[in-house]
Amino acid sequence: MQFDFPLSQLESYAPDEAAPADFASFWQDTLAEARSFPLNARFVPVQSLLRSVQVYDVTYAGYGGAEIRAWLLLPAGTTAPLPCVVEYIGYGGGRGQPSDWLLWPSLGYATFVMDTRGQGTTWRTGDTPDPQAGGEPHLPGFMTQGIAAKETYYYRRVYTDAARAVEAAGSHPNIDASRIAVTGGSQGGGLAIAAAGLVPEVALCMPDVPFLSHFSRAVTLTDSAPFSEIAAYLRIHRTRVSETMNTLRYFDGLHFAPLAKAPALFSVALMDFVCPPSTVYAAYNRYGGEKAIRVYPFNGHEGGESQQAQEKMAFLAAHLPLDVGL
Amino acid sequence: MQFDFPLSQLESYAPDEAAPADFASFWQDTLAEARSFPLNARFVPVQSLLRSVQVYDVTYAGYGGAEIRAWLLLPAGTTAPLPCVVEYIGYGGGRGQPSDWLLWPSLGYATFVMDTRGQGTTWRTGDTPDPQAGGEPHLPGFMTQGIAAKETYYYRRVYTDAARAVEAAGSHPNIDASRIAVTGGSQGGGLAIAAAGLVPEVALCMPDVPFLSHFSRAVTLTDSAPFSEIAAYLRIHRTRVSETMNTLRYFDGLHFAPLAKAPALFSVALMDFVCPPSTVYAAYNRYGGEKAIRVYPFNGHEGGESQQAQEKMAFLAAHLPLDVGL
Amino acid sequence: MQFDFPLSQLESYAPDEAAPADFASFWQDTLAEARSFPLNARFVPVQSLLRSVQVYDVTYAGYGGAEIRAWLLLPAGTTAPLPCVVEYIGYGGGRGQPSDWLLWPSLGYATFVMDTRGQGTTWRTGDTPDPQAGGEPHLPGFMTQGIAAKETYYYRRVYTDAARAVEAAGSHPNIDASRIAVTGGSQGGGLAIAAAGLVPEVALCMPDVPFLSHFSRAVTLTDSAPFSEIAAYLRIHRTRVSETMNTLRYFDGLHFAPLAKAPALFSVALMDFVCPPSTVYAAYNRYGGEKAIRVYPFNGHEGGESQQAQEKMAFLAAHLPLDVGL
Amino acid sequence: MQFDFPLSQLESYAPDEAAPADFASFWQDTLAEARSFPLNARFVPVQSLLRSVQVYDVTYAGYGGAEIRAWLLLPAGTTAPLPCVVEYIGYGGGRGQPSDWLLWPSLGYATFVMDTRGQGTTWRTGDTPDPQAGGEPHLPGFMTQGIAAKETYYYRRVYTDAARAVEAAGSHPNIDASRIAVTGGSQGGGLAIAAAGLVPEVALCMPDVPFLSHFSRAVTLTDSAPFSEIAAYLRIHRTRVSETMNTLRYFDGLHFAPLAKAPALFSVALMDFVCPPSTVYAAYNRYGGEKAIRVYPFNGHEGGESQQAQEKMAFLAAHLPLDVGL
Amino acid sequence: MQFDFPLSQLESYAPDEAAPADFASFWQDTLAEARSFPLNARFVPVQSLLRSVQVYDVTYAGYGGAEIRAWLLLPAGTTAPLPCVVEYIGYGGGRGQPSDWLLWPSLGYATFVMDTRGQGTTWRTGDTPDPQAGGEPHLPGFMTQGIAAKETYYYRRVYTDAARAVEAAGSHPNIDASRIAVTGGSQGGGLAIAAAGLVPEVALCMPDVPFLSHFSRAVTLTDSAPFSEIAAYLRIHRTRVSETMNTLRYFDGLHFAPLAKAPALFSVALMDFVCPPSTVYAAYNRYGGEKAIRVYPFNGHEGGESQQAQEKMAFLAAHLPLDVGL
Amino acid sequence: MQFDFPLSQLESYAPDEAAPADFASFWQDTLAEARSFPLNARFVPVQSLLRSVQVYDVTYAGYGGAEIRAWLLLPAGTTAPLPCVVEYIGYGGGRGQPSDWLLWPSLGYATFVMDTRGQGTTWRTGDTPDPQAGGEPHLPGFMTQGIAAKETYYYRRVYTDAARAVEAAGSHPNIDASRIAVTGGSQGGGLAIAAAGLVPEVALCMPDVPFLSHFSRAVTLTDSAPFSEIAAYLRIHRTRVSETMNTLRYFDGLHFAPLAKAPALFSVALMDFVCPPSTVYAAYNRYGGEKAIRVYPFNGHEGGESQQAQEKMAFLAAHLPLDVGL
Repeated sequence: MQFDFPLSQLESYAPDEAAPADFASFWQDTLAEARSFPLNARFVPVQSLLRSVQVYDVTYAGYGGAEIRAWLLLPAGTTAPLPCVVEYIGYGGGRGQPSDWLLWPSLGYATFVMDTRGQGTTWRTGDTPDPQAGGEPHLPGFMTQGIAAKETYYYRRVYTDAARAVEAAGSHPNIDASRIAVTGGSQGGGLAIAAAGLVPEVALCMPDVPFLSHFSRAVTLTDSAPFSEIAAYLRIHRTRVSETMNTLRYFDGLHFAPLAKAPALFSVALMDFVCPPSTVYAAYNRYGGEKAIRVYPFNGHEGGESQQAQEKMAFLAAHLPLDVGL
Repeated sequence: MQFDFPLSQLESYAPDEAAPADFASFWQDTLAEARSFPLNARFVPVQSLLRSVQVYDVTYAGYGGAEIRAWLLLPAGTTAPLPCVVEYIGYGGGRGQPSDWLLWPSLGYATFVMDTRGQGTTWRTGDTPDPQAGGEPHLPGFMTQGIAAKETYYYRRVYTDAARAVEAAGSHPNIDASRIAVTGGSQGGGLAIAAAGLVPEVALCMPDVPFLSHFSRAVTLTDSAPFSEIAAYLRIHRTRVSETMNTLRYFDGLHFAPLAKAPALFSVALMDFVCPPSTVYAAYNRYGGEKAIRVYPFNGHEGGESQQAQEKMAFLAAHLPLDVGL
Repeated sequence: MQFDFPLSQLESYAPDEAAPADFASFWQDTLAEARSFPLNARFVPVQSLLRSVQVYDVTYAGYGGAEIRAWLLLPAGTTAPLPCVVEYIGYGGGRGQPSDWLLWPSLGYATFVMDTRGQGTTWRTGDTPDPQAGGEPHLPGFMTQGIAAKETYYYRRVYTDAARAVEAAGSHPNIDASRIAVTGGSQGGGLAIAAAGLVPEVALCMPDVPFLSHFSRAVTLTDSAPFSEIAAYLRIHRTRVSETMNTLRYFDGLHFAPLAKAPALFSVALMDFVCPPSTVYAAYNRYGGEKAIRVYPFNGHEGGESQQAQEKMAFLAAHLPLDVGL
Repeated sequence: MQFDFPLSQLESYAPDEAAPADFASFWQDTLAEARSFPLNARFVPVQSLLRSVQVYDVTYAGYGGAEIRAWLLLPAGTTAPLPCVVEYIGYGGGRGQPSDWLLWPSLGYATFVMDTRGQGTTWRTGDTPDPQAGGEPHLPGFMTQGIAAKETYYYRRVYTDAARAVEAAGSHPNIDASRIAVTGGSQGGGLAIAAAGLVPEVALCMPDVPFLSHFSRAVTLTDSAPFSEIAAYLRIHRTRVSETMNTLRYFDGLHFAPLAKAPALFSVALMDFVCPPSTVYAAYNRYGGEKAIRVYPFNGHEGGESQQAQEKMAFLAAHLPLDVGL
Repeated sequence: MQFDFPLSQLESYAPDEAAPADFASFWQDTLAEARSFPLNARFVPVQSLLRSVQVYDVTYAGYGGAEIRAWLLLPAGTTAPLPCVVEYIGYGGGRGQPSDWLLWPSLGYATFVMDTRGQGTTWRTGDTPDPQAGGEPHLPGFMTQGIAAKETYYYRRVYTDAARAVEAAGSHPNIDASRIAVTGGSQGGGLAIAAAGLVPEVALCMPDVPFLSHFSRAVTLTDSAPFSEIAAYLRIHRTRVSETMNTLRYFDGLHFAPLAKAPALFSVALMDFVCPPSTVYAAYNRYGGEKAIRVYPFNGHEGGESQQAQEKMAFLAAHLPLDVGL
Repeated sequence: MQFDFPLSQLESYAPDEAAPADFASFWQDTLAEARSFPLNARFVPVQSLLRSVQVYDVTYAGYGGAEIRAWLLLPAGTTAPLPCVVEYIGYGGGRGQPSDWLLWPSLGYATFVMDTRGQGTTWRTGDTPDPQAGGEPHLPGFMTQGIAAKETYYYRRVYTDAARAVEAAGSHPNIDASRIAVTGGSQGGGLAIAAAGLVPEVALCMPDVPFLSHFSRAVTLTDSAPFSEIAAYLRIHRTRVSETMNTLRYFDGLHFAPLAKAPALFSVALMDFVCPPSTVYAAYNRYGGEKAIRVYPFNGHEGGESQQAQEKMAFLAAHLPLDVGL
């Protein structure tokens, strides 16, 4: 069922929501503070049965200097600096196994897969704790951890990790730091938008059915997790509505999208109750760079799957061709 | 539907599961370590519209010295030391408002309501963070927080808080520390059993449909939360089955029940998918003190509700009569 | 999900629905007929373990002289006439145990809890039969009992019982009949509105997420019981639509609200599928007395729970202060 | 899913449950009392567009003399006394329209369709009120109406109506009272068994997936309505378990089956959660007459539908051939 | 819940959708091709226990000459040509048993029941294969079989079978080919509209809650099968949206309705998620003949059931009176 | 929930079910007939952005000579004959995109992915029609297509296609026909077992949570699709139980497993309602070759996912080492 606005309306949907006045300074300060910790990216080769790729187990300093894990996969025999795809992961999942990430290396691209701190138990294993988790009462899940203040909110840490992931990837000698694409689905898409907004060096942005955008509409529109975690939190913590919604304004894809300048390929699904299309278009319509969007009228949150993979492969090849640097 | 063993079989159900060899020492060490922090129980009077009770906002040092919140309600005009009911709360809830706790004070008993650290968002507000939460990837919820080792497991902290709650209650001048009852439903019942096992001074134990017992059977028997969180965790972290089940052995009501010597009134519901009756009887049948159980053949996890309240009122009045100390 | 009108629209929602021409005379006649039976309120003291309250098992004559049961709880030691809170109960529940009703007595108010005839099996026990139940084919439940005519409709009896409950409470020597508040949630809220509209002596009205209002919209808007019982009835009795809707016009909160003059505190939940917010606002916006409403944007039919209890405690204390009559 | 005993075990299932000592006298007294009211069967011709049948709207005196409605359909042009099929209806439904009942008349048999008092709103219209409904608090539905005592239980009235239906059918000049078959599905099947047990003149019994048998097992085995109404009632009225189960013993198909002597064709479905196969076999295995059963291994409560209709047509033709009386 | 447009809007709903330019020629060619096979209607008498009707097992040549099965029921003793009701069946069902079809013969009409090729397993048995089924990957079900092209689409074959059914019925000597009514519910209603549009000789059309109309709206409006099969197909076959929607334009009730000239009685249910009321009204409002519609405001897809049967009986008797030809 | 036998019992579960006497001859004849069509395997190179693999779009003659599609992926630059993994696909899915199949080529193995005729719409696209689909009425889905006889049953065609896939893979010059592994999950696992039983040349068998085994138990044990399709078919086609179960005996993994001699690695999940563990063990325990099984106690039908991929990678490397032929 297409439950949200009709497509024609989505295409021009522009909610009247301004970023907080201190949005930019909040994030400048946040990144500056994170960068006060040495990045300390380490790439430990992993022995595996894979012959077409070389795998590295990566650790780097994310928010607060916490050790964030990642995989780096390089096509076997890479010598020259390659363009790299940084992958962010959907809500609840972790980096899993290296063999879960063979697409971009098979195309000849380096791939850097950021583990999401604290996540990695709901549908694929993760290895990165969130040592700054405060333990405040919150709805089971991540959406309301530390939501009492923008300084303590969970996604402050994760967005920072995502920005630092681009830096970590770019620090590897076989990666061309000027040709880094960010991508991911759902939460991964939201992180791609945030990273593209926070890190000017990002060269391409490919968010699929992105999450974490237009909270003010989402929390009253959908009963599906994870947006629904916010409503569930406010169902009990009835006196914290304005403080909660205020925190979220600092983490809304709406306000990162205009900052991003890299060419972008979005995707959206018109039957997506998890990331309703109006929340995706709200970010897309404000996106600051050259952009295109693939629309899946009959899909839910699974979006375009293999079909969208084809679209992204072509978009990547067109914008970050492999052999241009040779 | 009565899905578990028939009642006649439940009544003699005795699974062959021994406590770990170091169960007692683990808990002695844990409590000793907790007691190395001063209890520091503070009772701040709360202004309220309630006339029949005097309310105090309580703080005391739980596991690791963390500040645990509680309510103390004394019948208005209390001067002599009273027997006290310590209430533990069901999974996901917090201490809420003082006006949620009028039963025992209306009977003339002091009431001490322990907030559960980290909880208090799913169905009633809580005010106590869990500062030692490690942030390791776990299933949203509390059942698998820190489950990689008995030392870091979430319930190590909560069981300790529960034991210290008895001490905190007993430290108030209007409470008779030799006449403290522990009670609660579901998780609250599990904590009551643990507290009765850990704190010899507990004078009465009234667990309703208690949770946290007989994990080895529960995790394969029921799909209902919160036991199901463990299965969901192992569904993804497939290589951690034995380590997980080993941790749980240190937190199983099965092994606290024999240590408890206070008279006890249990309740059990035969259609309870959340705390299946065999897991309740497994603890009950091993319970170390004088004991009775009320059976609700047609109830689910709601158990006996007001009917069981009547049973507990009578049991409390019989075992800890109000005026005996005068 | 907020599925109904947005809040700004709710606040001015004023459906164009007039009361039947004979609405007032129907209810005058109904009450007059009920009052032709002596009220015969009897208050039998109940022995209990409760020390802070004195409990009475009450019987009085409701519609058709039928014996309606209630609890009266007086703060222990009451001598002067007190203001009293009359509680009506949500759909399907009964008066339960006296210990279920400790809030208002703990504040120092008398409490009169009316059992709802025929109800008291779905979620809390009741003790009052409905001897005038006609046994006509109806949808299991109460919403369509006797709905073929306003004279035989189930709620004619219950609304009358509710009005008589105010009289019964006021007849007790320790209750000040000029300071009676009516309250309740869901069906209890609907009865509070009806009682405030029917009984001019009611001094305060505090309906929470009230039911029984704006039937014409509700029956096509929600699939949730109990409004859905009406649709389910008409699904089978297809030829009785107009007769059914006509009966309901005599029982619609829309038409009682303007008659009520007592100060009122409503509550409404914007995700409430049981009593959709537009049906609550339709009554609230027409309410005839001084009024206020608490809005819970992220709650369903549970509404404000303990938070709303705090609001009501303050509202009650402000409008019916305890010691004013001394 | 076949959730009950395997078929081989069902075929010899014989639960050890004896009828109450006064079972026979209770029913003798009940019928005697009913027969103290004149049967007063009236057959009012109904004008209809049906050409192959003549329809009569029937009224007769059931339990307590209450007016029970029925349809009588005679093949057009009937002159000689015919064998007759008495149909009882499934739970919640009523007699509906005459055109709903064309099967037996098309075969050449008279058909008498008893309306079930109070029912006829859930899935097909009924026209018969239950004037003796007491209005006691019960679970919405019919299973627990008046269940506090065998004298007041709803099914005392209905079983009596069912017995009187056979008498009413037999009183029509075009019906041969010695050749009356009783049939029905679910509740209708339960009533057929009861009627065959109570009325020795019944010549044939064809219960499909019969309900109302083996309550003691059913209430703990299935969560499906209507058996589940009993469990739901006892979930709240926790203190009434033995009184409730005792009442049911007087209405259990287990105890009517041995009294019945007419040849019988049962049907049973092995995936039937509504009337679990063990409850059907418990009655079937005790049935007092010549008997056969059709087993539908992959059906739920819909049972054999048209296929079973074929079976019954053949069974009826074999046992009550049409032209034998000519 | 009434989820679609309100009734007042439905009554004038006229979506701006034109038939394909070659719609008429496509169907002329299709029927011409089908008629190139001899109709070859055979009527084999069936022995049965039914006395009021004579049953024939019918076979005739449908699309591509495939053998389509049907039942013909004639009132026993028919000699003169009778008006006939052709019944089409709802999605998934088959012709079942002759005894399932006694209504119209009992009124004195011939009845011709067309089996639906390939169907007859979901809810009633069918006997007719679909030998032209191509075996292309499609969503389990019939809605997307051969949907890649109008020539291969499943409903091309079925609509043709439906048109040929009218011819087959009319070919029987006891049927008056000028007095044939078409009827059916859901898919059967959609086929009735198609047949009335394709076969000018149809004398009456009685579609109930008709399916297969206004695909363009239906596929985005409802998640209920069978419309949802189309969305599910396009969820995977993401590149085939326009080709799929184009095929459906040749099978849309919207475009058959204006071609039909026979008097019609429609029915519609306002809570019907299977065939949403706007899709029914879209066809009804365009219907080319004299017309009326019965509205069931509180029904889902079951629609008017026995009540609508009464309406149709009266409509049939008024428009095709039985004895007019004598 | 572990709903099936406990693990200890599963490990020795050996149902007493013999293969039909003509099982072997039926399959010999079937394969002989299929081989009467030339295999005609064509490998058309596909242009793609993938650099590490060369993709071929494959067509070969399956059952009845029908054209079956497949992908062949060879590691880029392959010259010598490689061992090959033949992948069969789970129920409802198709071969999708070449980029969906990068695991085995990244390890250095050839990969041959067989499309499943008729499937490829439920969760991933397929391209292969089933031209021999007979169009008989069956339950939507594939489980009951042509089930009236072993000769016409859908899986006769698919099992034959699976056997021929091994031959087609082996016919490519860069594949070593003596080193072919078969694998797949669910239906793919069932096909792997069948292929290993039918084709002696298969060198390794790795079925995950295999489907299509032990029908006689499965159809009464689980309500989950696709086994449930058989029960749903028999729910309507009530007279075809023995004919249906007889057909299935020719397609039961139970009877293929003993024929297989290749070393095998199975996996099973103990909470798998789709392919219950007893049905997997029934085949595993009879399997004719050297064997091992990985048990996932807390998984449903998703089984071991990436974890099992690691297990298979190691098993494959151990049994079919890459460089042994050089």
